[in-house]
Amino acid sequence: MKKAIDILIDKIKQMNNPTVIGVDTRYDMVPDCVKNKYPTDIKGMCAAMLEYSKALIDATYDIIPSVKLQSAYFEMYGVEGIKILKEMIDYCKSKDMVVMVDAKRGDIGSTSSGYSRAYLGKNTIDGEEVGIFDSDFLTVNPYMGSDCVMPFVEDCKKYHKGIFVLVKTSNKSSGELQDLKTEDGEEIYKKVAKLVNNWGEELVGEYGYSSVSAVVGATYPKQLKELRELMPTAYFLIPGYGAQGGKAEDIALGFDKNGLGGIVNATRSLMCAYKSDLWKDKFAEEDYAKATRAEAIRMRDELNSAINMK
Amino acid sequence: MKKAIDILIDKIKQMNNPTVIGVDTRYDMVPDCVKNKYPTDIKGMCAAMLEYSKALIDATYDIIPSVKLQSAYFEMYGVEGIKILKEMIDYCKSKDMVVMVDAKRGDIGSTSSGYSRAYLGKNTIDGEEVGIFDSDFLTVNPYMGSDCVMPFVEDCKKYHKGIFVLVKTSNKSSGELQDLKTEDGEEIYKKVAKLVNNWGEELVGEYGYSSVSAVVGATYPKQLKELRELMPTAYFLIPGYGAQGGKAEDIALGFDKNGLGGIVNATRSLMCAYKSDLWKDKFAEEDYAKATRAEAIRMRDELNSAINMK
Repeated sequence: MKKAIDILIDKIKQMNNPTVIGVDTRYDMVPDCVKNKYPTDIKGMCAAMLEYSKALIDATYDIIPSVKLQSAYFEMYGVEGIKILKEMIDYCKSKDMVVMVDAKRGDIGSTSSGYSRAYLGKNTIDGEEVGIFDSDFLTVNPYMGSDCVMPFVEDCKKYHKGIFVLVKTSNKSSGELQDLKTEDGEEIYKKVAKLVNNWGEELVGEYGYSSVSAVVGATYPKQLKELRELMPTAYFLIPGYGAQGGKAEDIALGFDKNGLGGIVNATRSLMCAYKSDLWKDKFAEEDYAKATRAEAIRMRDELNSAINMK
Repeated sequence: MKKAIDILIDKIKQMNNPTVIGVDTRYDMVPDCVKNKYPTDIKGMCAAMLEYSKALIDATYDIIPSVKLQSAYFEMYGVEGIKILKEMIDYCKSKDMVVMVDAKRGDIGSTSSGYSRAYLGKNTIDGEEVGIFDSDFLTVNPYMGSDCVMPFVEDCKKYHKGIFVLVKTSNKSSGELQDLKTEDGEEIYKKVAKLVNNWGEELVGEYGYSSVSAVVGATYPKQLKELRELMPTAYFLIPGYGAQGGKAEDIALGFDKNGLGGIVNATRSLMCAYKSDLWKDKFAEEDYAKATRAEAIRMRDELNSAINMK
């Protein structure tokens, strides 16, 4: 069976697009023309967010290889939110998209096993192994060290899944811990990078990239460049493009000489293209999904030209 | 309105018991006499785990002040698991227990706000503020720094809730990052400790302890002692007692001179008392909840005598 990381890279190459569309269930993002069809109780809100999210997938699945679902926004709607998280995972998989659940999990070993069984591996139900959320990738927080990460790594191996471990995150205060220099002069994020290399050592796929890869923010170009050297087998999930301020030419530093090595997340700029300065005059609100497609094409071309110029 | 940390300490004093019972939905822990009542599909498994968990609460709520629900094990059963997570939170609150959701969340600011709204704060549904999981406390991972933690701190303030931030975790490999010394000779966990002090500064309650507190593992007595000095306003959620190897006399080092400052988690040793060497000959399987109560009393007395001898 093919590794998720190889399937991801196949699709990135085939579509010539290193983008992952972020889908958050944020009711404030949903256009009124969708909102108005549903009641405003929690089930109605979830139904509206689901229709909107599916329409964005319908409009982009043939040009965007992957989708990232931010667990927090689904959890914010309790049981109803978790229902549509599962429905979105299944829907995106039915469209052949590579699915990432961005949940930044991590705990002591036995508990990480539980998380891993929830999102990547399988749980035993009625004597049979059953996928629960059954995502292709999960994001993982490394603060608790190897025994917290290894259960995920083992399921990557067993079920051909992948993880992105937080190395250098895109947020403003990420440096408070991640940039601290240790006694030997090396920053914490580099220590984590080396751990990620070790964790992923045995899971390198066809393209030279491992199922155990890394999150590196678009907002830190210096670190993107350094880490590209330091982590030759880690694919980078790169958040922070667009709304958070990361630019295409910065992001290009995270790519290798073959134009591979990174997949760039955009959420708000894609989901809300219909109300952005760039597109709001060109598309009616009802054509929100077309606006997302137009923005996806613009983003793809911008990224590719920055990567090729590098 | 009273702060959750003050309610917690009130109850610890009143019951003279610094214990938090961990409740994990682990089907292998459920006694056969409960399992046999239900089908073995996912709904039946969840119903069995719910009956078992509620029975343990019924047997201990008058002597144990607080309950910790480990989110991973609920998530492992997908939507059905999340339903019983919510049901357990509500049930434990109806018994006046202080509820902690152990989910170790953390993300960029806007996403942490989502998590915080899910577990501590409120979400806006139909124009009204509604509690979703509405726990009293949540565990938080600090790897991403202040802007990841502040949304939780703000909700602690607004809704009188509390968080326990991971400082020094109980697992074997916690030192890989947490014990690294920085250039000034201070370990990462101490840097996090100082951040926790800052985050919690304005939220110190009646007993001198803050709504922003810390997770410190029972398995690291040296650090428990150091951190007790370094974090005078942080209450310690102390995992690692029993199954993980933490001893009562080690745990006592995390307490202050008034016998306050820590709450000790036990999960397996309480939940599975009925099959432990200590209790299995004294209680029939059907009396599993009585065995848990007996172990809870033994644990309470052991902790208190270690804390008093200190």
